[in-house]
Amino acid sequence: MKPYVIGLDLGGTNSVFGIVDSRGDIKATTAVKTQAYEKVEDYVKACVEAVHVIIDQTGGLENIKAMGIGAPNGNFYTGSIEFAPNLSWGHDGIVPLADMFSKALGVPVALTNDANAAAIGEMTYGVARGMKNFIMITLGTGVGSGIVINGQIVYGSDGFAGELGHVIMVRENGRSCGCGRNGCLEAYCSATGVARTAREFLKESAEPSLLRDMKPEDITSLDVSLAAAKGDKLSKRVYEFTGEMLGEACADFATFSSPEAFVFFGGLTKAGDLLMKPLERSYRKHALAIFRDKPKFLVSSLDGASAAVLGASAVGWDL
Amino acid sequence: MKPYVIGLDLGGTNSVFGIVDSRGDIKATTAVKTQAYEKVEDYVKACVEAVHVIIDQTGGLENIKAMGIGAPNGNFYTGSIEFAPNLSWGHDGIVPLADMFSKALGVPVALTNDANAAAIGEMTYGVARGMKNFIMITLGTGVGSGIVINGQIVYGSDGFAGELGHVIMVRENGRSCGCGRNGCLEAYCSATGVARTAREFLKESAEPSLLRDMKPEDITSLDVSLAAAKGDKLSKRVYEFTGEMLGEACADFATFSSPEAFVFFGGLTKAGDLLMKPLERSYRKHALAIFRDKPKFLVSSLDGASAAVLGASAVGWDL
Repeated sequence: MKPYVIGLDLGGTNSVFGIVDSRGDIKATTAVKTQAYEKVEDYVKACVEAVHVIIDQTGGLENIKAMGIGAPNGNFYTGSIEFAPNLSWGHDGIVPLADMFSKALGVPVALTNDANAAAIGEMTYGVARGMKNFIMITLGTGVGSGIVINGQIVYGSDGFAGELGHVIMVRENGRSCGCGRNGCLEAYCSATGVARTAREFLKESAEPSLLRDMKPEDITSLDVSLAAAKGDKLSKRVYEFTGEMLGEACADFATFSSPEAFVFFGGLTKAGDLLMKPLERSYRKHALAIFRDKPKFLVSSLDGASAAVLGASAVGWDL
Repeated sequence: MKPYVIGLDLGGTNSVFGIVDSRGDIKATTAVKTQAYEKVEDYVKACVEAVHVIIDQTGGLENIKAMGIGAPNGNFYTGSIEFAPNLSWGHDGIVPLADMFSKALGVPVALTNDANAAAIGEMTYGVARGMKNFIMITLGTGVGSGIVINGQIVYGSDGFAGELGHVIMVRENGRSCGCGRNGCLEAYCSATGVARTAREFLKESAEPSLLRDMKPEDITSLDVSLAAAKGDKLSKRVYEFTGEMLGEACADFATFSSPEAFVFFGGLTKAGDLLMKPLERSYRKHALAIFRDKPKFLVSSLDGASAAVLGASAVGWDL
């Protein structure tokens, strides 16, 4: 049996490749700047050149079983990236990326969206090992999700299921969301949402806060969590507000698939208990009685830098 | 191959049995009063006596492959009815009904909740034939749901997934719900919810309405749809409000499983376009762009009286 799979974590800034074995050890890595190319053909060409170096380092192409890609707006059914707003070569069309890599490398290639890849990675290598029913929620620049039911990722009728960041949490006067609508979970509970909440709280009162030393537009979710760690009350309330809303959202999600666990991943989870305690408390308060004490609330055990590559590689193992 | 399955639609009032063939033809039926018995043993005994008559009418037990039961608070994993508030013999414990019927009749028995049975029935005999991904929403005294993903009912980690009637639609000052919480979809969009909306609208203004001829507490969803059919504006607005909220809920549900269709079933669907037009319009208005034009909005094609028995029988065919 061929011992390795190539994992590609295709992000808006970097495209990170890893050669991964079946235990989740990353044997070699390389990276390419995602947006340094206007045309997808040039991007793929640069990627293939870079990845051939690490393929050679790990014993050549005969050791490679397949390749897995996790990408924004990735569609597992078609192997394409569809209308990805943040990719210079992918924003206004359908890019058959799995097919292009498969032809260029000569191995089977599967592609899925980044949150689904994270869920598969967590199920293969992380805290969700052995679980058949869980919901992965990624808290980064946006809020993504990968839903696992009966041990399978939910792709739905079109490959785009699992967009829980776009459930409406505030139906009246909700914040504008990048999707063009208002009140989405993502507008509140992403990293950018946390920064927006901080700016709102600062504006609403004259309460002293360490954050007042910064220009409002420069505040990030990391600044808020650092201030909260120093005891800043306003910053703590920002995370309480965020956790509270995520808990309410999870109470709704439980009615759908009654998962064994909710697994959180991404930058915001670095806030730790600041986020997770109010989240779990809010879930228990808002959940339907039969679901109240059932799900676990877990934070990804995978190292942030490599988790996305591992997740992508796991998509390849499934081939 | 044994040609028939027994379907049992176990309702709060009647327990309706049918002997069903593989095409969905009901060969014989009988019924028992569900709540005429204090003890479940007596209920099962009465059922078995009644069902033996129709088994004999259709050629005897050797023609029966299995039995399927659709029941409130039914758990497919355990074959039990668990804490069913509306059943005299089932409200404060776990009743292993599938096992009891299997022992008494000598055939395999599967049990699921009523909304899941309806979804399986629709997939086997109705408008969802051939669909792998759809969401069934039952609009009766309550709001139930059966979610189908990859051709399978979603049961979740505990057998209780698919409680979409208890998604929170109104987070501030929501109506009280039978589940003990506030603002659930069911509190607005069930038959009783429609009657509540009518009473609220009547109270909020002095607008003339045919419904003012009735005692407020006597108004049912049927009265509202009959008045609306006669052109009563207030009654029309009640259905617009109901459809609007259901459409918003479906927009959220689409982010979860991106279904090919939403299939509606139950008493409220008799209102027809009064309900379905605002529902679909609201969905298109509120859905995330990638889901906006995808799902179909269908009303069950199965005859109301027999649909639940067919659904229950379909659970038996799956054994």
